[in-house]
Amino acid sequence: MIKVFLNEDEIPKKWYNLAADLPTPMLPPLGPDGKPVSPDMLAPVFPMNLIEQEVSQERWIDIPEGILELLYRWRPSPLQRAVNLEKALGTPARIYFKNESLSPAGSHKPNTAVAQAWYNKEFGIKKLVTETGAGQWGSALSFACALLGLECKVYMVRISFDQKPFRKVMMETWGAKCIPSPSPETKAGRDVLEKNPDTPGSLGIAISEAIEEAVTDETGKTRYSLGSVLNHVMLHQTIIGLEAKKQLQKFGEKKVDVVIGCAGGGSNFAGLSFPFMADKINGEKIEIIPVEPASCPTLTKAPFVYDHGDIARMTPLLPMYSLGHSFVPSPIHAGGLRYHGMSPLVSQAVVEGLATPLAINQLECYSAAMLFAKTEGIIVAPETSHAVAAAIRKAREAKEEGKARVIIFNLSGHGLMDLYGYDAYMQGKLKDYEMSKDEVHDSLAEIKGYPKAEMRKTGKW
Amino acid sequence: MIKVFLNEDEIPKKWYNLAADLPTPMLPPLGPDGKPVSPDMLAPVFPMNLIEQEVSQERWIDIPEGILELLYRWRPSPLQRAVNLEKALGTPARIYFKNESLSPAGSHKPNTAVAQAWYNKEFGIKKLVTETGAGQWGSALSFACALLGLECKVYMVRISFDQKPFRKVMMETWGAKCIPSPSPETKAGRDVLEKNPDTPGSLGIAISEAIEEAVTDETGKTRYSLGSVLNHVMLHQTIIGLEAKKQLQKFGEKKVDVVIGCAGGGSNFAGLSFPFMADKINGEKIEIIPVEPASCPTLTKAPFVYDHGDIARMTPLLPMYSLGHSFVPSPIHAGGLRYHGMSPLVSQAVVEGLATPLAINQLECYSAAMLFAKTEGIIVAPETSHAVAAAIRKAREAKEEGKARVIIFNLSGHGLMDLYGYDAYMQGKLKDYEMSKDEVHDSLAEIKGYPKAEMRKTGKW
Repeated sequence: MIKVFLNEDEIPKKWYNLAADLPTPMLPPLGPDGKPVSPDMLAPVFPMNLIEQEVSQERWIDIPEGILELLYRWRPSPLQRAVNLEKALGTPARIYFKNESLSPAGSHKPNTAVAQAWYNKEFGIKKLVTETGAGQWGSALSFACALLGLECKVYMVRISFDQKPFRKVMMETWGAKCIPSPSPETKAGRDVLEKNPDTPGSLGIAISEAIEEAVTDETGKTRYSLGSVLNHVMLHQTIIGLEAKKQLQKFGEKKVDVVIGCAGGGSNFAGLSFPFMADKINGEKIEIIPVEPASCPTLTKAPFVYDHGDIARMTPLLPMYSLGHSFVPSPIHAGGLRYHGMSPLVSQAVVEGLATPLAINQLECYSAAMLFAKTEGIIVAPETSHAVAAAIRKAREAKEEGKARVIIFNLSGHGLMDLYGYDAYMQGKLKDYEMSKDEVHDSLAEIKGYPKAEMRKTGKW
Repeated sequence: MIKVFLNEDEIPKKWYNLAADLPTPMLPPLGPDGKPVSPDMLAPVFPMNLIEQEVSQERWIDIPEGILELLYRWRPSPLQRAVNLEKALGTPARIYFKNESLSPAGSHKPNTAVAQAWYNKEFGIKKLVTETGAGQWGSALSFACALLGLECKVYMVRISFDQKPFRKVMMETWGAKCIPSPSPETKAGRDVLEKNPDTPGSLGIAISEAIEEAVTDETGKTRYSLGSVLNHVMLHQTIIGLEAKKQLQKFGEKKVDVVIGCAGGGSNFAGLSFPFMADKINGEKIEIIPVEPASCPTLTKAPFVYDHGDIARMTPLLPMYSLGHSFVPSPIHAGGLRYHGMSPLVSQAVVEGLATPLAINQLECYSAAMLFAKTEGIIVAPETSHAVAAAIRKAREAKEEGKARVIIFNLSGHGLMDLYGYDAYMQGKLKDYEMSKDEVHDSLAEIKGYPKAEMRKTGKW
């Protein structure tokens, strides 16, 4: 047996909320005045049902039937054993991967996209606005809005918009509007364009434009949607790990030793790993590894601080590991991992010692992805290659130690829309960009005066 | 319930061979002397175990365990009900689609690619050579060879090679060598390049180069592989329909009214429909529809004749519907359907009245694909859009007649590598090219003196 499906009736009916089980409670987001943000303050941006989920302390949250019906379109996703990879490595480890690349948008992102679109529709919202960098999230939200009949608008960072024309076509095929950011359609966009008409754009500017469009819409029927970082996004992704646990049982595995996911904003890592963290909190010995690029070492080299989620400082201050909100990572090919911050829930898990982060350079990641393609036949996304590389490292360790470890990683997306990275790698055009301590230090200068998230440990919050 | 998986133990263990059940036996392929080709004559091109399969009259052929293990990587594929599409059409019909787009290469092609690679390996072959037009087949064979550790070389029609650089990257990621055809590596290629250095190439030239490389290899360890048309290819694809029948039962469907697949060389259509044809031969009333582009109306406007499978006339004469082996179809976006001939088994099924072909123009197909993307969330390949368009036509008919028909079609591939076609459609740049009777007449001139396949009905064969 190399693959386990679940039938529709075996799909998890509740999401798992790690916030309920964390040894110390989460810190609140802070407003411009340094005071905790109240749910009401977020109401122009998100619908109240999602805001409630964002602050929920319930351990289990029912997945509404309407969302299950959307998830059934591609879920449960299969759990597969990488038998050929094991053989190639000569490892006694058993390597499993959860294949999230089979969604119609090609990644794990639709898990939260359909949930967010559904809650917005329930709340009477007619239109969702978002930003996208590499294009995975914009595609996923466009897909979800198509299924639910919502309008969708995506501000796509101009340089990606120009370099990846097919991402835009994908979104348009699903009926969304995708425009390059900065655009003349918002004040934020016009301001930037006036000063710098040829700017390549940035995720920060795109976020500003999307939020501005949502909060200024006079009908009150437009909201903003975010594809990572926030608590409710992590929550929606936990279906990945909950399914995987059932599937591991069907494989006859009683214990998992290593759980791996790549981490940019944190959502696919959280999705697979949080249900296993619950076991870890209850005393099981599991190594849980978020993997990030060495060129954007948020969890491995940056401090746990309060920082904005975007360069334009439109978001509240969030308690998280951060390289500083205006940090611009090197142009590596895993666009989805080029983010200065990290989900507060994932950050908190690292602070608690529940997860032990790892940074890997892109050449090792592509080499791992090539080996995976040649042995298992699947071409993974550049982001996912980080998880593959970590799984291979752990399988080699298991070989050295002669231990039959059970390793599971999240195959968060396929790479068919991002083959230029593979091409560059095979042509020897890629190089590594490892961020030095000094560079990290410089990048943090801008947030020097910000409140330290560590203060929570002193009981001041 | 909108989707039915099968578990590994429910996968069909035998392929279904329609040749065993056809009311009249198949005509043999003919050699240059007009006499039937013997298996020995094909031995330099294909391994003997596949040649035996090509001429087999057994109804059921065991799928070797080694091939099942390869198929388990993505099979069984899900059968899904298009509930949102039904709702949008307001039809009483129940529309099902078999989702073959979830293979790592993105289409149904790997079903035969892994089987062919496995049989070649069993026979001691070390290297497979093939040609590819749009790139789907070259990708699938590269994928299969990676899994089995075979060398793979793909001659890709130069114009596609230049226009679709990412297909080549896909093949290279799987370790295959992909070069533009015509190339200086074969005599056939050099001859063409000498006369016309700037030729865009053609499938015919690419086939000639691939066969030449296979038959001239001095080690005797190289063979040629074809992704459609031949009997053993159709056979390997029947796993699609055999799975679908089990899944329809789980949906509670006792009877199917309409079975649909797009048809270029015929393999995905055959794969879904042949197991249903067996029921039709046994008296069940089923409408079975191969759908082709109006610009390449092989089954709907061409005669059933003996013709070569390639422009260079390297292949034997095959009994099939054909527009003439040097016919060059209009540049529509469904590259996989631009073929002058048709699988002899599919052709024979049409002659027998087991299948009733339909030709549809590409604008209707893209319009159908857009509706499908917006309702069901899946962006299908341009080829597959023909099946979607036919399913929608039949669902509308069912509405007019007020009948709750059961319609199933083959979702043969996703369109994520072919989004330029969607872009052109949305920008209003596409047009229809319907082939007139006169054009068909002219295109057939070259095969005027060829033996007519209809002669079989006179008992002369």
